[in-house]
Amino acid sequence: MISPFAEEVKSFFMSLQNDICAAVESTDGKAKFQEDAWSREGGGGGRTRVLQDGEIIDKGGVNWSGVHGELPDNIQKALGLESKFFFATGVSIVMHTVNPNVPIIHMNVRYFETRKSKDSSEIEDAWFGGGIDLTPHYVIDEDAKWFHEQLKAACDQHNLDYYPKHKKWADDYFFIKHRKETRGVGGIFFDRLKANSIISLADLFAYVKTVGETFAPTYTKLMSKNSELTYGESELEWQKIRRGRYVEFNLVYDKGTKFGLDTDGRIESILMSLPRMAGWPYDYKPEPNSREAYTLDKLKKGIDWV
Amino acid sequence: MISPFAEEVKSFFMSLQNDICAAVESTDGKAKFQEDAWSREGGGGGRTRVLQDGEIIDKGGVNWSGVHGELPDNIQKALGLESKFFFATGVSIVMHTVNPNVPIIHMNVRYFETRKSKDSSEIEDAWFGGGIDLTPHYVIDEDAKWFHEQLKAACDQHNLDYYPKHKKWADDYFFIKHRKETRGVGGIFFDRLKANSIISLADLFAYVKTVGETFAPTYTKLMSKNSELTYGESELEWQKIRRGRYVEFNLVYDKGTKFGLDTDGRIESILMSLPRMAGWPYDYKPEPNSREAYTLDKLKKGIDWV
Repeated sequence: MISPFAEEVKSFFMSLQNDICAAVESTDGKAKFQEDAWSREGGGGGRTRVLQDGEIIDKGGVNWSGVHGELPDNIQKALGLESKFFFATGVSIVMHTVNPNVPIIHMNVRYFETRKSKDSSEIEDAWFGGGIDLTPHYVIDEDAKWFHEQLKAACDQHNLDYYPKHKKWADDYFFIKHRKETRGVGGIFFDRLKANSIISLADLFAYVKTVGETFAPTYTKLMSKNSELTYGESELEWQKIRRGRYVEFNLVYDKGTKFGLDTDGRIESILMSLPRMAGWPYDYKPEPNSREAYTLDKLKKGIDWV
Repeated sequence: MISPFAEEVKSFFMSLQNDICAAVESTDGKAKFQEDAWSREGGGGGRTRVLQDGEIIDKGGVNWSGVHGELPDNIQKALGLESKFFFATGVSIVMHTVNPNVPIIHMNVRYFETRKSKDSSEIEDAWFGGGIDLTPHYVIDEDAKWFHEQLKAACDQHNLDYYPKHKKWADDYFFIKHRKETRGVGGIFFDRLKANSIISLADLFAYVKTVGETFAPTYTKLMSKNSELTYGESELEWQKIRRGRYVEFNLVYDKGTKFGLDTDGRIESILMSLPRMAGWPYDYKPEPNSREAYTLDKLKKGIDWV
């Protein structure tokens, strides 16, 4: 049993997955998403959808899941929860591209609730999390600015504090500590947003809906625009390196990935975020004043793109 | 100030690095190791040597380091040490190969000591660690058996318990939990071997010397033998996937890598273990009865290769 509110969130996330897959497929024009439906022993399951070998998308995943059951004691404790009866649902996206001029993108929206007992549908604790962030292989200022403007507009519909707060949160979260560089040009990130005396769970849901709905028009525009740009061997070499950094972030720092690996999740759904090809040539250093050097210089926290 | 014993170990490790680089270069016949010497702010430094684009070796690192200073409180505590004045030296090797029929190999030998005070050369606590393990892209029983025989012979010179004990330790350590598969066909692994009433620190050093000296003749033989075997696109695709698993192990589980990243080590020296190219095609499943399926079937703990 899950709360009526959770049913509503779950339905929205399932439609969102459909809508985003349709938009990406139509913009890509070549490959189709293939679905693997899976179920979880403890309760619930998911629909993993991956598109490979597209015209624009090299490997992209748009995953939905909705799982419920009883949390293991250690996770219940780590999350500081009164109850172990939980439901979690979300949509996760990562897109790796053929053309190094088209950026990698990531989106996640998620909802989590606990209920007092197994058979109760009354919410005990509930929160939303999520965000969208962009990882260009080559930073193009105009695109990064435009991307952040779309996110700011989405945030501003709901709360003028959201964009500055969640933009900073993304800068801090998507940071590869050992490289002292950000994963990309950031975006927005938020976690455990709970209702309070001013903002209801329905308000938070409305915000998360807007975030989810911002994905397709924003990314498909970048797909179309930049896939026309030409590239050669040296751009592909740099793409491999940037993808390597992406792998480093996801395997070393990303909480969702760690949680999935630690809790025996479906590995190919969790690791759909990893590219079909990445590389670590030893001690690669970009030429001074190159596009690569320019990009590295922009992989910093605190850049005001808007 | 480090103990006279540590000086001896350090000198041996530096020569070992030289000898192994010479043997690998001579067998490869094409590329040469390039050295980056680095120094550490807290004390000591290292010589990172990487060979890329060889005839047999695609990317291989043979790193020596010798660092000393004062341990941060949290590490001193985690290691359960009385003193914070430490010296650590070791040689670390990872070789990725051009031909998927030639296995990836890893070796590490290391020595760690603490002294009562900064200016004392008297050992307070000391131990050795290390091992050699093999990660064939394609498991060839005959090679795995021969490889384990070399390690067993090395171990048996010192203590008949070492091979069975350290072989099991390698099986347990080089295990990719989330995939439920071993990284390769294992080898030997040991950590924090300390002197006791029967075995002296000198005895342990003798064992570690033998392990170090076993590397070059063993691996160069596998290099020469298997680099003659032919391969095509599908073998290269599988190599990319096996390298991807190697990346997963090193970034998610390997203690040395984690320690290096957490303590602000030289990133390109730590991550020399990662291949120039790796990949994660979605949900790859080998054909039944293929060499790939055979390999997966052999990536299990507890296989008695000898």
